[in-house]
Amino acid sequence: MADRRAFLGLAAALAACTKSTKVPSAVEQSMTPYGERAATETIARAVGESTASLGVGSSRTPLQHLHGVITPSSLHFERHHAGVPKIDPAKHTLLVHGLVEQPIEFSMDDLKRLPAATRVHFVECSGNGRGEFMGTAGATAQDSHGLLSCAEWTGVPLKHVLAQAGLKPEAKWVIAEGADACRMARSIPMEKCLDDALVVYAQNGEALRPGQGYPLRLLLPGFEGNTNVKWLDRLHVTEAPAQSNQETAHYTDLMPDGKARQFTFLQDANSVITRPSGGQKVSGGAGFVEISGIAWSGSGKVKRVEVSMDGGKTWDDAVLEEPVLPKALTRFRIPWVWDGKETVIQSRCTDETGYLQPTRDEIVEARGMAFNYHYHGVKAWVVKADGSVTNV
Amino acid sequence: MADRRAFLGLAAALAACTKSTKVPSAVEQSMTPYGERAATETIARAVGESTASLGVGSSRTPLQHLHGVITPSSLHFERHHAGVPKIDPAKHTLLVHGLVEQPIEFSMDDLKRLPAATRVHFVECSGNGRGEFMGTAGATAQDSHGLLSCAEWTGVPLKHVLAQAGLKPEAKWVIAEGADACRMARSIPMEKCLDDALVVYAQNGEALRPGQGYPLRLLLPGFEGNTNVKWLDRLHVTEAPAQSNQETAHYTDLMPDGKARQFTFLQDANSVITRPSGGQKVSGGAGFVEISGIAWSGSGKVKRVEVSMDGGKTWDDAVLEEPVLPKALTRFRIPWVWDGKETVIQSRCTDETGYLQPTRDEIVEARGMAFNYHYHGVKAWVVKADGSVTNV
Repeated sequence: MADRRAFLGLAAALAACTKSTKVPSAVEQSMTPYGERAATETIARAVGESTASLGVGSSRTPLQHLHGVITPSSLHFERHHAGVPKIDPAKHTLLVHGLVEQPIEFSMDDLKRLPAATRVHFVECSGNGRGEFMGTAGATAQDSHGLLSCAEWTGVPLKHVLAQAGLKPEAKWVIAEGADACRMARSIPMEKCLDDALVVYAQNGEALRPGQGYPLRLLLPGFEGNTNVKWLDRLHVTEAPAQSNQETAHYTDLMPDGKARQFTFLQDANSVITRPSGGQKVSGGAGFVEISGIAWSGSGKVKRVEVSMDGGKTWDDAVLEEPVLPKALTRFRIPWVWDGKETVIQSRCTDETGYLQPTRDEIVEARGMAFNYHYHGVKAWVVKADGSVTNV
Repeated sequence: MADRRAFLGLAAALAACTKSTKVPSAVEQSMTPYGERAATETIARAVGESTASLGVGSSRTPLQHLHGVITPSSLHFERHHAGVPKIDPAKHTLLVHGLVEQPIEFSMDDLKRLPAATRVHFVECSGNGRGEFMGTAGATAQDSHGLLSCAEWTGVPLKHVLAQAGLKPEAKWVIAEGADACRMARSIPMEKCLDDALVVYAQNGEALRPGQGYPLRLLLPGFEGNTNVKWLDRLHVTEAPAQSNQETAHYTDLMPDGKARQFTFLQDANSVITRPSGGQKVSGGAGFVEISGIAWSGSGKVKRVEVSMDGGKTWDDAVLEEPVLPKALTRFRIPWVWDGKETVIQSRCTDETGYLQPTRDEIVEARGMAFNYHYHGVKAWVVKADGSVTNV
């Protein structure tokens, strides 16, 4: 592992100055009611939208350009099955019905009067990493892992919402439905509904963005993205799951024996180095480089992240940036003195349950090659002698 | 204190439904590279800019409309003394000179290669609350406390930057200078520079916003906002403070004896109820209401927040939302069953040093009436019988 003080050597490579040439700048901007980013900043989501069917597709978060763990709301990934509905929050309601003592329809004002909770959690599409698994991913972390974002969410614990209606003893599932054109519907086990599920109206301090379910979404920490139903307007309490299109035709895991696993909700322990990563270049050549990335697990907190700078021969513990929060992105960092030769760098995550992120080979051995979701294998990048970084 | 289960009674006040009238929505939007908020969302900073001197003034964060503790970057407060300079990050440099072994000029790329750190911290103008103290504040929490925001910041620990240049033994202060038209300059004690100070290039995951110092600012956790020099381009290491305009003519605290306290950096323990707060209305009349607000201290973590719903006769402990982070906003919540009669609600914060937020009277007794900065008295709101909330 690199000597933590080795970066001090960088000083020699920097230009030295003996006097200041700084001059005042002209006043060119002033205060605004709702600010925008600098015109020189151009990082963006990568949009892949169907031209045949408007509103079907995804936009990926540029993970390699981000810092910390909060994803700016303007760059939160999107995966829409039928576009983004335009909803007037003053008219939007949430209906709770089915196996309840008293069906209730909440206005947004009703919901905001209930006890709220704020939590930082990642949301990840279960299809994230599929291109990486199939060998069709592009050059960057955005291409390979960009269906992943993390935000500070505020809303009402779902258990409080359900308590208002009163659950009947036979209530075992809640079918959450969205107001999009396909009426997205997913069945959620009652255990999750009464645990840490939230009915969310705020993202990073302000109202949810349209692409994340404005004005109301379900948030199921650690569960695959599709279950976090956006534009939430109905909760149907039932004894059995709905067997909806999105939990039968899609979002199931086909096993080698031809059977499909259903309701495989959890996003497993995962990690990716974001700096340096594919498409970037280590500027300035050999010497001190900080390797940084993100790790996460749907099962709880990240306990450990190991990084290899020699193609997997040796692994060193990265430092986890505090606070390490459950079911949230965790930023890891590790110092490295690069010798300027081509090498392979990679990371692997262990979560608080003791589960270690597997290699691609281990996943193929356990699950075969037919499945489409929940790939979470160890991700490697090649650092070439000229400093450029490419996908393996 | 309110029974935490009392909100269940709200169910009776809600309209009941026995069947669904939900219909799918038309596809009206699709994915975008850089998202925007919903057109129906209109919360904004309150801009107070000098018409005689463009670029001088402030814009205030609408705290009463925010959730959690992260301030959206578009709504982060601004306090500019000479506008927002337009800076090309590809050409921006940070010069470290003065009492150092080797003066150095860092490019942005140089800085990003150094070890980074991500921290959530508030920034608060030391003039925040001045209107409240003088009795000239407006109706809302934005008016009274809006020169306060909180973000996830990423940058290089200042100690690493200084170590690159090498401090001489007589180095005791660092004069930080900004690239704005007034060449903002503040003198920072070396102890703070070698503690938790950061040279920051990212805010809530992406590049700093122009109004917060793009592309580089100083962040001094817990210190008055003005010292967190924006558009940072020079660090002059010295033996004595600069006695700059902004630490002599301004940002000093005039005491009753006619002497002024200088270099009073710390923002003291403070808190404000944001919901319900001035300008809002408790919708739906008497019954369960969640009181929520924010607390903070420049000295470390918030240890306790007490809330009174009876004009200060009795106080109850609010719940602090985890994680409670040092020198960051902490969200507090407490359930209340409002009897529908006019009353006064208020909060008071105790930080981890044991310091209790004082009343206005206690501050006047200790400091007199001549000072302009660092007011942090207990804030009260009147809840009227019709549910409207006003400043005291």
